[in-house]
Amino acid sequence: MSITSLQRTARTSGPTRPLVLHPDRTFPVDPGQRAIARSIYEQVRNLPIISMHGHVDAQVFADNPPFADPAQLLIVPDHYVCRMLYSQGVLPEGMGIPRVDGGPTEADSRTIWRRFCAAWPLFRGTPSRYWLEEEFSTVFGVTEQPSADNADALYDQIGAVLADSSFRPQQLLDRFNIELISTTDAAGSDLSSHAALNAQGLGGRVLPTFRPDAVVYLDRADWRDGIDALGQASGIDVSGYHGYLDALRERRQAFVRMGALATDHGHYYADTAPLPETAAAELYQRRIAGGTVTEAEVHAFAAHMLFQMAQMSVEDGLVMQIHPGVYRDHHSGVFGAHGQDKGFDIPFGVEFTRALQPMLDAFGADPRFRCVLFTIDETVYSRELAPLAGAYSSVRIGAPWWFIDSPEGMRRFFETATETAGFANMSGFVDDTRAYCSIPARHDLYRRISSGYLSRLVAEHRLAEDEAIETAIDLAYRLPKLSYQRTAG
Amino acid sequence: MSITSLQRTARTSGPTRPLVLHPDRTFPVDPGQRAIARSIYEQVRNLPIISMHGHVDAQVFADNPPFADPAQLLIVPDHYVCRMLYSQGVLPEGMGIPRVDGGPTEADSRTIWRRFCAAWPLFRGTPSRYWLEEEFSTVFGVTEQPSADNADALYDQIGAVLADSSFRPQQLLDRFNIELISTTDAAGSDLSSHAALNAQGLGGRVLPTFRPDAVVYLDRADWRDGIDALGQASGIDVSGYHGYLDALRERRQAFVRMGALATDHGHYYADTAPLPETAAAELYQRRIAGGTVTEAEVHAFAAHMLFQMAQMSVEDGLVMQIHPGVYRDHHSGVFGAHGQDKGFDIPFGVEFTRALQPMLDAFGADPRFRCVLFTIDETVYSRELAPLAGAYSSVRIGAPWWFIDSPEGMRRFFETATETAGFANMSGFVDDTRAYCSIPARHDLYRRISSGYLSRLVAEHRLAEDEAIETAIDLAYRLPKLSYQRTAG
Amino acid sequence: MSITSLQRTARTSGPTRPLVLHPDRTFPVDPGQRAIARSIYEQVRNLPIISMHGHVDAQVFADNPPFADPAQLLIVPDHYVCRMLYSQGVLPEGMGIPRVDGGPTEADSRTIWRRFCAAWPLFRGTPSRYWLEEEFSTVFGVTEQPSADNADALYDQIGAVLADSSFRPQQLLDRFNIELISTTDAAGSDLSSHAALNAQGLGGRVLPTFRPDAVVYLDRADWRDGIDALGQASGIDVSGYHGYLDALRERRQAFVRMGALATDHGHYYADTAPLPETAAAELYQRRIAGGTVTEAEVHAFAAHMLFQMAQMSVEDGLVMQIHPGVYRDHHSGVFGAHGQDKGFDIPFGVEFTRALQPMLDAFGADPRFRCVLFTIDETVYSRELAPLAGAYSSVRIGAPWWFIDSPEGMRRFFETATETAGFANMSGFVDDTRAYCSIPARHDLYRRISSGYLSRLVAEHRLAEDEAIETAIDLAYRLPKLSYQRTAG
Repeated sequence: MSITSLQRTARTSGPTRPLVLHPDRTFPVDPGQRAIARSIYEQVRNLPIISMHGHVDAQVFADNPPFADPAQLLIVPDHYVCRMLYSQGVLPEGMGIPRVDGGPTEADSRTIWRRFCAAWPLFRGTPSRYWLEEEFSTVFGVTEQPSADNADALYDQIGAVLADSSFRPQQLLDRFNIELISTTDAAGSDLSSHAALNAQGLGGRVLPTFRPDAVVYLDRADWRDGIDALGQASGIDVSGYHGYLDALRERRQAFVRMGALATDHGHYYADTAPLPETAAAELYQRRIAGGTVTEAEVHAFAAHMLFQMAQMSVEDGLVMQIHPGVYRDHHSGVFGAHGQDKGFDIPFGVEFTRALQPMLDAFGADPRFRCVLFTIDETVYSRELAPLAGAYSSVRIGAPWWFIDSPEGMRRFFETATETAGFANMSGFVDDTRAYCSIPARHDLYRRISSGYLSRLVAEHRLAEDEAIETAIDLAYRLPKLSYQRTAG
Repeated sequence: MSITSLQRTARTSGPTRPLVLHPDRTFPVDPGQRAIARSIYEQVRNLPIISMHGHVDAQVFADNPPFADPAQLLIVPDHYVCRMLYSQGVLPEGMGIPRVDGGPTEADSRTIWRRFCAAWPLFRGTPSRYWLEEEFSTVFGVTEQPSADNADALYDQIGAVLADSSFRPQQLLDRFNIELISTTDAAGSDLSSHAALNAQGLGGRVLPTFRPDAVVYLDRADWRDGIDALGQASGIDVSGYHGYLDALRERRQAFVRMGALATDHGHYYADTAPLPETAAAELYQRRIAGGTVTEAEVHAFAAHMLFQMAQMSVEDGLVMQIHPGVYRDHHSGVFGAHGQDKGFDIPFGVEFTRALQPMLDAFGADPRFRCVLFTIDETVYSRELAPLAGAYSSVRIGAPWWFIDSPEGMRRFFETATETAGFANMSGFVDDTRAYCSIPARHDLYRRISSGYLSRLVAEHRLAEDEAIETAIDLAYRLPKLSYQRTAG
Repeated sequence: MSITSLQRTARTSGPTRPLVLHPDRTFPVDPGQRAIARSIYEQVRNLPIISMHGHVDAQVFADNPPFADPAQLLIVPDHYVCRMLYSQGVLPEGMGIPRVDGGPTEADSRTIWRRFCAAWPLFRGTPSRYWLEEEFSTVFGVTEQPSADNADALYDQIGAVLADSSFRPQQLLDRFNIELISTTDAAGSDLSSHAALNAQGLGGRVLPTFRPDAVVYLDRADWRDGIDALGQASGIDVSGYHGYLDALRERRQAFVRMGALATDHGHYYADTAPLPETAAAELYQRRIAGGTVTEAEVHAFAAHMLFQMAQMSVEDGLVMQIHPGVYRDHHSGVFGAHGQDKGFDIPFGVEFTRALQPMLDAFGADPRFRCVLFTIDETVYSRELAPLAGAYSSVRIGAPWWFIDSPEGMRRFFETATETAGFANMSGFVDDTRAYCSIPARHDLYRRISSGYLSRLVAEHRLAEDEAIETAIDLAYRLPKLSYQRTAG
């Protein structure tokens, strides 16, 4: 595996630099405004974390195993770290990413860690750098920035912390001050990990979220497996369309019983136009029978199912999270060799206004309905999402996330989303991460940036400081709790 | 009518806060830059208001009635205020919005006012809050921010001002320093209110604007009524396409005689491709005869008519205002119950470059033609509108308006529109409001934000301060007067 | 030719203002941050210029003639200057733009110059003003801003400098500290100017870039001429599709032999979907035979050829520059009278994620492939280009250019492109200009703005100052050299 390009473009030598977290990091530059930001932030920095959209595996919480080593904890599973190395010529195999075919991949965690450390200059100005610095410093006590020179020493230092018995997933819930955290679970999940968490008294703290994408997109390679799992988990015959809907309804209830507050829908488009029932049933039947379904039919069925999911949310009160506009697995080579979620999901332009109209027309003003809209296409904040959320009682604007979960991205979010929608129509922050140790850093950054934005409103005499503090508390804690309350059922 | 959600999410209690307008509000934070902004602003703050695009009813000026009460003046007709309450679960009926079917709606203005005051925290960080604060303070002498506690007191205080005989629409023209204000009038309007204004010596100060949308969109429910009015007002037989064009031409002349300087076109798309005349005539004829017209034909005819309107502007010199990209009446329930303009107009992405090409190719370099382009899709400022306005002699960029008429929105406007187009190709500010009392606050905010942007150019040594002052005067006063001069006819 | 509008809207009188370049121009306003920006900038201001994408004619370097006069050097060929005057009613003829039909146009350079000077206020807040100020001051020693009053004096002052024998194209390479500059050359160019430059020892300093657009777009009026030139230059029979591909391959090799490092592709769309070979061959054959080709076929063939060009880049290592999304020659009247590149190229919204997928799927992870992606649709930076460049090892983000090559535009570029992609995936700056004397000013502005952005990262404690300096050096010098290295062949 070649790291030629990396050697050519990254600066891998140079002095080892100290790692010191400045208390004013990411605050506005003007001294007067910074002082205001600091005093707002002081009121929110220690609030408990509400993490209602994330990807830490439920089993990790249930089994509570020790973490393996620095590379396996911090690097290999974090595709935002790995993709930056790919972008400079390192292959996934070089970062120890498992191959679907079981083929060879870097097995030595220390080697992977060294590659990461040597590539540290690549992360300048990125949110990954920001989060990692904070994790290194506050969680692991690291005092130097990674470099080719200190890679081994850091590996050992972090490894020693990981070996400590207090450093386990469940114990970190307390250490990280996490009041509520949600996993993401397939529609056909048997929720056994959540049952185990319930038995351990963690049921109200670690919640499942219902994600049916795999059984909604008829062209998914794992569709049939998902349908089988759905049938099995629900105990309902899913060989026909109505059984399929019943099974989904049953699983949603099962999720509700296990504490779920929300569903999650990662769709290609935001379309919500329902099909005639017979057309939907015919499509489902055809796919079950192994027949051919066109791309247009795949999208039409997905839109139809989004409408059905909204209808079910009106019944059971699960808050509906929608996030369209991503081309998944853009590089077929990486997907074929390593599977999904490997850093090659690429956003594209997205449309909400017309796409959501059927759903909002039907349920948008229904007090039993709530939807949280996420986007990576920032242009829709001022143009579509804020106008929608500022009128429809059901609509909340989701957090700036994924590629926008960054200092500059979050600033643009506040500037473009809040004037028209008002702060009360924000859903607060979600970290959306599988990098467990980064959760406190991510929430802290959001609190810093929101304090920074609010400090400007104060400095510009558009808001009193006590109102800004209330608003910061709303954004950090109150709104995510309110937005993800079940509204019915 | 439920206000459950409101109670859950808005902070309705807490101390009553003072309402004090800081003289430096919305100015840049840096002290040095703020001083420059202040000195630029001092030169424009008292300039007369040129308000060439608005929605105050002509009859209000002509009849000059006293205003009813605080809720009926400031809350009920302002759909930007009401929509924020809808977004938190208050129904339109709860805000006294009349029902189309005459059904029950809140009749007690004081109750409506209390609901608004209790919801005041929802407006934090919004332009509505900014304007209302300024109106409350400068127009009505209010010294406390609205709250559940002081709602009745404020109602009485504002009511007392409204009862004063000097507080009438015509008297406010002077008090607000309005040199020129334009109403918006249907193509088939008989302009009787404007005739009355003429008779009262206000003809040169309150002008009509010609808005033919209702007779251009073949699918409008009120199309036939509009056509009938057009025929009646013009005295021309509009049963055929050529009569229709002649009647439009005649009404434009009538508007010109009544002082009109501009037309206004709120189209779904910006398309301007003309149809073959026979095709346009056939479509019109078919619609007149009650035949079916497809959605595609509706848009094709609208595009065709935009081209015709441009052609007529070349003849009569009326400045053509175009603003596409809004999904009107997005929620059919609210539209069915309460009619249009109720806060459910939602923008979508829009395209100008290709859409306007036919029109600009034909008339764009003609000195007798002028068009002002508005958008709520901000992405087009740097990408399309500035490049167009920076080349075509006929094109001016309209004000940041509607949802973008806000501190952050206007800042982005200056940053994205002026570098490529130059300030001379801006048309200056329009308030676009039906909230009469908010007009001074809106123009003042624009003057503050433009001074703020210019102060940065000065502080960054990109512009001398005296040039910045000239530019601020241009934006506030000179450019709207120049941009809305008739160019021919 | 009318300059009526200009007289109406531009401020043409007033005091003659001094022209003084402030050393801190365009730096951030906050004094603490400005000091950081200044110290970063000090480390990059004198670095040599790498100018890998530009439009100065190769023959100008080869023949090294004296420049004609101020108007012919600075105004007439700069369509960004001229378009601003068109936008206020001056006709192209009034600025001396030659007519295709040889018809009359302003022949007196002094008259053209006076028009420009009188229009100087139009340029407030534009990048043209910024560059011109810097050229006037540093290159020509001008100490007053242009005005109607001093037009003649400036004309004479600048003319005197131009008359100096040291003021020739080749001599300016040294004076401007240009280490490397690239011209843009048609696929069928015989590269005789570059051969002459080679003979003069300038071969490694002035490089050709291979631009095949004219032979790739089947609807170009000059397509047949381009094909003939391609056949002639390559000595290959291009009457069939395979000969056409062979000829392109041969010319690329000829460009490589003459020092070329890159190709340049200005496409309408970014589509890269390859056609079946027989379909492509049939289309080519049909066009050669004079048959009709539909608009859809034109675009399909262009997409196909972009894929072929990528394939050839894998073979010969030429870096592939792609810039879609511009409606060329938007006004047919100006195009018909004066030809292309006259300021009427207008951008539109563009899509990269899906469009580039075929190409990136095939070559995106190939170490022999590199592509640099340019855009004028800024929305794609955070949404598409940064995610692509932050994953694919072949992708670099091109400079903010054309209409975005401005203080505000470049700031937005850094804010939206670098967090997700990392600085190492930027290709550094290109000036993209035919205004030779503006090159130092353009590169200097980029260095100032990048220093300004980096100073904020430092002031916000997101980056150490020494890292910021390294990054500024990378952006100004190291990355353009690395990004434009040939990767294979």
